[in-house]
Amino acid sequence: MTPVVIRTRARAPAAAMADLGALGVSTTHEAMGRTGLMKPYLRPIYAGAQIAGGAVTVLAQPGDNWMIHVAIEQIQPGDVLVVACTADNTDGMFGDLLATSLKARGGVGLVIDAGVRDVRTLTEMGFPVWSRAISAKGTVKATLGSVNIPVVCAGALVHPGDVVVADDDGVVVVPRLEAESVAAAGRKREANEDEKRRRLASGELGLDMYGMREGLAKAGLVYRDGD
Amino acid sequence: MTPVVIRTRARAPAAAMADLGALGVSTTHEAMGRTGLMKPYLRPIYAGAQIAGGAVTVLAQPGDNWMIHVAIEQIQPGDVLVVACTADNTDGMFGDLLATSLKARGGVGLVIDAGVRDVRTLTEMGFPVWSRAISAKGTVKATLGSVNIPVVCAGALVHPGDVVVADDDGVVVVPRLEAESVAAAGRKREANEDEKRRRLASGELGLDMYGMREGLAKAGLVYRDGD
Amino acid sequence: MTPVVIRTRARAPAAAMADLGALGVSTTHEAMGRTGLMKPYLRPIYAGAQIAGGAVTVLAQPGDNWMIHVAIEQIQPGDVLVVACTADNTDGMFGDLLATSLKARGGVGLVIDAGVRDVRTLTEMGFPVWSRAISAKGTVKATLGSVNIPVVCAGALVHPGDVVVADDDGVVVVPRLEAESVAAAGRKREANEDEKRRRLASGELGLDMYGMREGLAKAGLVYRDGD
Amino acid sequence: MTPVVIRTRARAPAAAMADLGALGVSTTHEAMGRTGLMKPYLRPIYAGAQIAGGAVTVLAQPGDNWMIHVAIEQIQPGDVLVVACTADNTDGMFGDLLATSLKARGGVGLVIDAGVRDVRTLTEMGFPVWSRAISAKGTVKATLGSVNIPVVCAGALVHPGDVVVADDDGVVVVPRLEAESVAAAGRKREANEDEKRRRLASGELGLDMYGMREGLAKAGLVYRDGD
Amino acid sequence: MTPVVIRTRARAPAAAMADLGALGVSTTHEAMGRTGLMKPYLRPIYAGAQIAGGAVTVLAQPGDNWMIHVAIEQIQPGDVLVVACTADNTDGMFGDLLATSLKARGGVGLVIDAGVRDVRTLTEMGFPVWSRAISAKGTVKATLGSVNIPVVCAGALVHPGDVVVADDDGVVVVPRLEAESVAAAGRKREANEDEKRRRLASGELGLDMYGMREGLAKAGLVYRDGD
Amino acid sequence: MTPVVIRTRARAPAAAMADLGALGVSTTHEAMGRTGLMKPYLRPIYAGAQIAGGAVTVLAQPGDNWMIHVAIEQIQPGDVLVVACTADNTDGMFGDLLATSLKARGGVGLVIDAGVRDVRTLTEMGFPVWSRAISAKGTVKATLGSVNIPVVCAGALVHPGDVVVADDDGVVVVPRLEAESVAAAGRKREANEDEKRRRLASGELGLDMYGMREGLAKAGLVYRDGD
Repeated sequence: MTPVVIRTRARAPAAAMADLGALGVSTTHEAMGRTGLMKPYLRPIYAGAQIAGGAVTVLAQPGDNWMIHVAIEQIQPGDVLVVACTADNTDGMFGDLLATSLKARGGVGLVIDAGVRDVRTLTEMGFPVWSRAISAKGTVKATLGSVNIPVVCAGALVHPGDVVVADDDGVVVVPRLEAESVAAAGRKREANEDEKRRRLASGELGLDMYGMREGLAKAGLVYRDGD
Repeated sequence: MTPVVIRTRARAPAAAMADLGALGVSTTHEAMGRTGLMKPYLRPIYAGAQIAGGAVTVLAQPGDNWMIHVAIEQIQPGDVLVVACTADNTDGMFGDLLATSLKARGGVGLVIDAGVRDVRTLTEMGFPVWSRAISAKGTVKATLGSVNIPVVCAGALVHPGDVVVADDDGVVVVPRLEAESVAAAGRKREANEDEKRRRLASGELGLDMYGMREGLAKAGLVYRDGD
Repeated sequence: MTPVVIRTRARAPAAAMADLGALGVSTTHEAMGRTGLMKPYLRPIYAGAQIAGGAVTVLAQPGDNWMIHVAIEQIQPGDVLVVACTADNTDGMFGDLLATSLKARGGVGLVIDAGVRDVRTLTEMGFPVWSRAISAKGTVKATLGSVNIPVVCAGALVHPGDVVVADDDGVVVVPRLEAESVAAAGRKREANEDEKRRRLASGELGLDMYGMREGLAKAGLVYRDGD
Repeated sequence: MTPVVIRTRARAPAAAMADLGALGVSTTHEAMGRTGLMKPYLRPIYAGAQIAGGAVTVLAQPGDNWMIHVAIEQIQPGDVLVVACTADNTDGMFGDLLATSLKARGGVGLVIDAGVRDVRTLTEMGFPVWSRAISAKGTVKATLGSVNIPVVCAGALVHPGDVVVADDDGVVVVPRLEAESVAAAGRKREANEDEKRRRLASGELGLDMYGMREGLAKAGLVYRDGD
Repeated sequence: MTPVVIRTRARAPAAAMADLGALGVSTTHEAMGRTGLMKPYLRPIYAGAQIAGGAVTVLAQPGDNWMIHVAIEQIQPGDVLVVACTADNTDGMFGDLLATSLKARGGVGLVIDAGVRDVRTLTEMGFPVWSRAISAKGTVKATLGSVNIPVVCAGALVHPGDVVVADDDGVVVVPRLEAESVAAAGRKREANEDEKRRRLASGELGLDMYGMREGLAKAGLVYRDGD
Repeated sequence: MTPVVIRTRARAPAAAMADLGALGVSTTHEAMGRTGLMKPYLRPIYAGAQIAGGAVTVLAQPGDNWMIHVAIEQIQPGDVLVVACTADNTDGMFGDLLATSLKARGGVGLVIDAGVRDVRTLTEMGFPVWSRAISAKGTVKATLGSVNIPVVCAGALVHPGDVVVADDDGVVVVPRLEAESVAAAGRKREANEDEKRRRLASGELGLDMYGMREGLAKAGLVYRDGD
């Protein structure tokens, strides 16, 4: 694989990205037909952050963060840096200096299938990170990788410019050209949920609200008295 | 296994459950002779919750939350929903809609050997969950399981109506008929600990307070000067 | 291996330890040439603690905390207790009574390659712990181990009296006789970072600040336009 | 929990056990309605063994094999020793001396939710073991546990006298009183499979043989041409 | 995601596939520039198999093997079935009946990011499988997935018709249109290795053969005498 | 850490090493007082190999095998190469070319806390390897490490020249200067075991042979009749 940096500026419409960010990961993932989710081992370094942005992708060597420096130049305001590794690795490939730089260029968050460090400072900066580990392990700058090629990050395929949505539930990837339709489907889904929430809060059972009883009986569910 | 829902209303005495909830997991587990503990991979989605309640049990198929809807009808005020899976799974089988419903029926918490989602909302609702994962992964409603049969959840055997105690240290299960004796043993243990805590805080060594020196010497422990 | 307790009082200079505590784990680890780090599975039980202190080491049997009682007598004010296990184990070998005792003797924290319990109380006490697990699982006091022998804890070699530095990024071990030189190197490193941070915050790229462009080109990195 | 050894001689009928052993784990598990399976992390130390026998159960402390010595006295010819641990552990709790003793008493295999050692000798002896790990780690004989109480082993509930079936696919537990009915269901299932195997081998598709096409279409499956 | 089966017949040239099968996984992976590798948790169920074939891909629900039945109809002689799951799962989704059918249609192997069962029979059949687990756990046929869409399997992106190469070192995926160039690069690499192997076998050092000494010295490597 | 290669020729006496190799891992580990064992995740790539030899140690960067080339020059006939990594890694850092070279220099095996590849060829060569993973993942030659410094490999401390014993039970490290005394203790232990094995094979219980009944009763074990 020839190491390459692709300069690409195509992003999803800002309004769609904003909507997806407001909808959050679980709703977006459902709106996509339950696809695009990264593995749940990716966890936020602090609770409460919720973002959406265009992906700048990095494929890096384990324990080597050279390409992250390269990638920051390709960041546009509102982007999310997505770092995949050629092998499973937990080294602290990103810390507060890189966060300072990424933030200064307009980056709004980091998703990394490896480790991060300086998490206390990152938390104080309010710079959100989803990572597979927290580790102080220092890295080298010795081997090239690529920027803005398609990568598999934590089990999900990410193309540069895709919309990355991340919150306390995890990270989901929306293909750039589907951002508007997914956002629309998500908004519709959310509208439906408000009414459901109200009915369930009043004590109505899901069994009745969703009309499940017939299907359950047909599938063979039986009730018996115990005690 | 025929899919079945057992209607059962037997619970431990409320006072015993309240005591166990106040004692917490570690003391309860000790008072039971160090049994009944679920595996430590179950973690609370937020810190600080401490509950005890009667178990309504669910055995579900991985990635299928149909039976959770069924189980909510069997909840009595003060109950804890306990969800086991027929295979290891981290999908987000429970979210804020189910929590709203469970809470409306009087449920006080969820213990699930799988994943949950909408954790930010669940935290805002103050609805405590102990799970093996946080994941936005959506689930299907396609295959039956059972409700209120004995299940093995995170390595512990749970019968419906057993007392489930959960806090920041994990989750422990107290057989229904032992709830009062375990609560009594726990209260006694706790009373003893207050005096110990005071003495240790004053600088007295456990070696002396517990009279360990003789046993250590007898077992062959030797002291040597270093440096 | 004969079970033994080594009485040893040699510690690194207090000023060096204080400096290392202020520098934190990532800077200390870099200042040591990227060595001495414990594995990232050790995590703090609460965020925000940052300590450094002399190591009192324990080698314990899995599920047996007898030697922790023995070790507390060897604690000097400012020390950190470091517990290694002869086999991988997650039992709750340490709780609030031991913490009360350790704190009363001047101990400032615990690093344990096993589990801890009573974490809510430990958090309220402000007693910091880095552990591989949180578990209520009770332990026995049946088999001897050793205190103040060299141990491998979470992948790092620790000699008694070494400086243990721990924060939200993990745990690093500084050999006692290198504490001053590492602290000096760390302070120097930190001074350099302030200027870098300022330049990056102003939008300057790491590519330019570190002069990386030539090296990248030489290594064969190419840029292409996408879209 | 009071440490106790239960002397119990009830076993399933020998013919049913022999049938289950011949059917193997996957067929038995299906014949039970897909229950009773231990977690797949239990693996045989060598390929090709296939056994069934009555369970003598042990609940042991991690790293302590005292109770295995106790349990061997309770073995009847044809039995399988089932060792559960009070906490996750990989120590080598069983080796060639214990295997020699167990075999001499008529034991036909070991299922252990911990480690074993001397696996080369065990293989040469033809003594089959299913374990979670292979480890030379030596154990102590310091703390009591129990023999022939119900245990949760690798996620499955085992009562003494239950039938344990083990082969290259894993380990499944059949409740003693269900052994005959499960064996009958298994034999029937197997008879059905021979005909299916023949038809599939001749090139007939499962889609047609099982009549799946209508169900798939109804569920919404669509076919499209690619290329 | 609409469940869909794509009928596609495009495969890489047979000669290229044969060459890749002969080269094996490590050489193919190097010839591709070190890309395309599945995660190493995929392991063969028996040692010694080495295959290459065109991918028929399946995206299945955890614990549901309905779509595998569907996929077998799409198999062409020489193909490899590649099964990805929408969530991590170890259930035994494939056994000897499916293998009989797959083999009868000309399939030469299975790569599955889940579990398999009947491994003894599969081994006797000489039907090679690479899986993440061996498990007898039975599955349902309840929820649709897709066949011959691009999937991420064990961390690698697979398009239908890509060449899947598998041996004792793991599994690698070669994009269909690159099969010939990768095979050529692999053959060239292998030719080079024979000469290297001969020189190394005669005692020549890699340091000299590869001319590494200068680079090492330049990078700062120093030699010191010990003892 | 300055990258360094230490030239050191001190080895344990050949007779002691031969004895340890014949005793194997479990007996050696017991003879050392149950210390020195590497974690059980290190597994042999094929069954049946049993070796002992002097350690040449390597500390390598994850995914970088440059220092393995350097280390081979330091091998003496009968040595075992021991490779530790600065961070957890499973890349295939060693394959058949390196094995050819290592074997040509007299090396008798490899212990590596990372991955290996070409395992089929290594097996055909009869070159034994204990590794944490099998992976075709290629590595770079970009960053220095060290050779013949003390390393922590799979949780065990190894000094250059220590005796590494490895077989199907795992890997154990004997400090060079203790090799003779450990070998003597191991031979004595083994002699004792022959008599025990004979008695156990004749049906004598360990309970009686080891005189455990009194101790068990004293510790509180009770017997009860079931059924």
